[in-house]
Amino acid sequence: MRVAVEEKVLNENQRLSLELRQRFHDHDVFCLNLISSPGSGKTSLLERTLEAMPRDTKVAVLTGDIQTENDARRLARAGFPVKQITTGGTCHLDAKMITRALSDWNLDDIDILFIENVGNLVCPSSYDLGEHAKVVLLSVTEGEDKPLKYPGIFLKSELCVINKMDLLPFVPFDLSAARENARKVNPEIGLVEVSCTSRQGLGDWFCWIDRRRRKAVAAQAV
Amino acid sequence: MRVAVEEKVLNENQRLSLELRQRFHDHDVFCLNLISSPGSGKTSLLERTLEAMPRDTKVAVLTGDIQTENDARRLARAGFPVKQITTGGTCHLDAKMITRALSDWNLDDIDILFIENVGNLVCPSSYDLGEHAKVVLLSVTEGEDKPLKYPGIFLKSELCVINKMDLLPFVPFDLSAARENARKVNPEIGLVEVSCTSRQGLGDWFCWIDRRRRKAVAAQAV
Repeated sequence: MRVAVEEKVLNENQRLSLELRQRFHDHDVFCLNLISSPGSGKTSLLERTLEAMPRDTKVAVLTGDIQTENDARRLARAGFPVKQITTGGTCHLDAKMITRALSDWNLDDIDILFIENVGNLVCPSSYDLGEHAKVVLLSVTEGEDKPLKYPGIFLKSELCVINKMDLLPFVPFDLSAARENARKVNPEIGLVEVSCTSRQGLGDWFCWIDRRRRKAVAAQAV
Repeated sequence: MRVAVEEKVLNENQRLSLELRQRFHDHDVFCLNLISSPGSGKTSLLERTLEAMPRDTKVAVLTGDIQTENDARRLARAGFPVKQITTGGTCHLDAKMITRALSDWNLDDIDILFIENVGNLVCPSSYDLGEHAKVVLLSVTEGEDKPLKYPGIFLKSELCVINKMDLLPFVPFDLSAARENARKVNPEIGLVEVSCTSRQGLGDWFCWIDRRRRKAVAAQAV
């Protein structure tokens, strides 16, 4: 019975995520869904990303959190529209929350929508939000075994951002094993290595966004 | 309807956790439930703890993971009984999994049972496993805001272990704000600061286990 109800919830999510995907398509919105453990640096990566965005690119952010509005406050400094979705205990964002959060935004005013999911490497991977791609963040302080231990999200992500590279000299993180583990779970996954502190590798991340967005536009034109 | 089924699942968990608590009481087993984000260092802390245990203390470990048996392999090196509970996608341990895992262990052979939960700061906090206390780990690389962002687990834990203190010089972590945030959520919470690499502060953690265990024994004698 529990399984049946969970399936019903996921089917409802599937329906709403298809609607969202269609709306993103109709309004030329490119959408990324960022997922990681708490404290892997999703908000920091978005801060660096918003700072670097060309001013003629209209960016918006939805950021999920169990309880606080801290992340929205941090991200709002860049001047783009940011909305906090406070889930009040729920461990993931779902398509209904995204639909509700977008209800008073004009999608024609958005080129790129970043969704920062709740910090959780497990549950958010089951909920499609209509995004073009999921991006998983892994920080070097978490250990190179994480792709094997949490395979679901690495399997579903198009890109793995290995973050906090500035801390690599101080932690027992085997970078090539991390890459290998991510590719063992998902041979197609892209990999970029960045530090939001030293800013190393951020260019690779910006390039990936750009390429992926052009791919989405090309697919749309077909 | 979803809420009703979730309540039913939690009620069933409550029933089984009461049974577990009674069994731990009857067999003088002191049980701790360790919860944190992926990569905060639960397994490392348990490795250091098992190494330091007096040989006349009979320790056992149940360690939860979505997919791999890596942690059990790491922990088994200390020579104590260790069993991996592979949840196959489920984002937390529940009382039924613990009951099943204990079925072929003689509880009279266990003085202290450590349960290492699935790496997840959200869902495990809702599932009582019959433990004497929950312990939440927070590593300094995750940020001092986490108690405010994930209040549920900080509210339910008796102790917060701040881990990876050796990395403090390299990260923008405000230690006093972290302490303050934890106490804001739970004024009663204990705090110890450790590094499993430099081994600083581990004595405080061992003392806390010892004191908490004596408290449990004293409560049992009443």
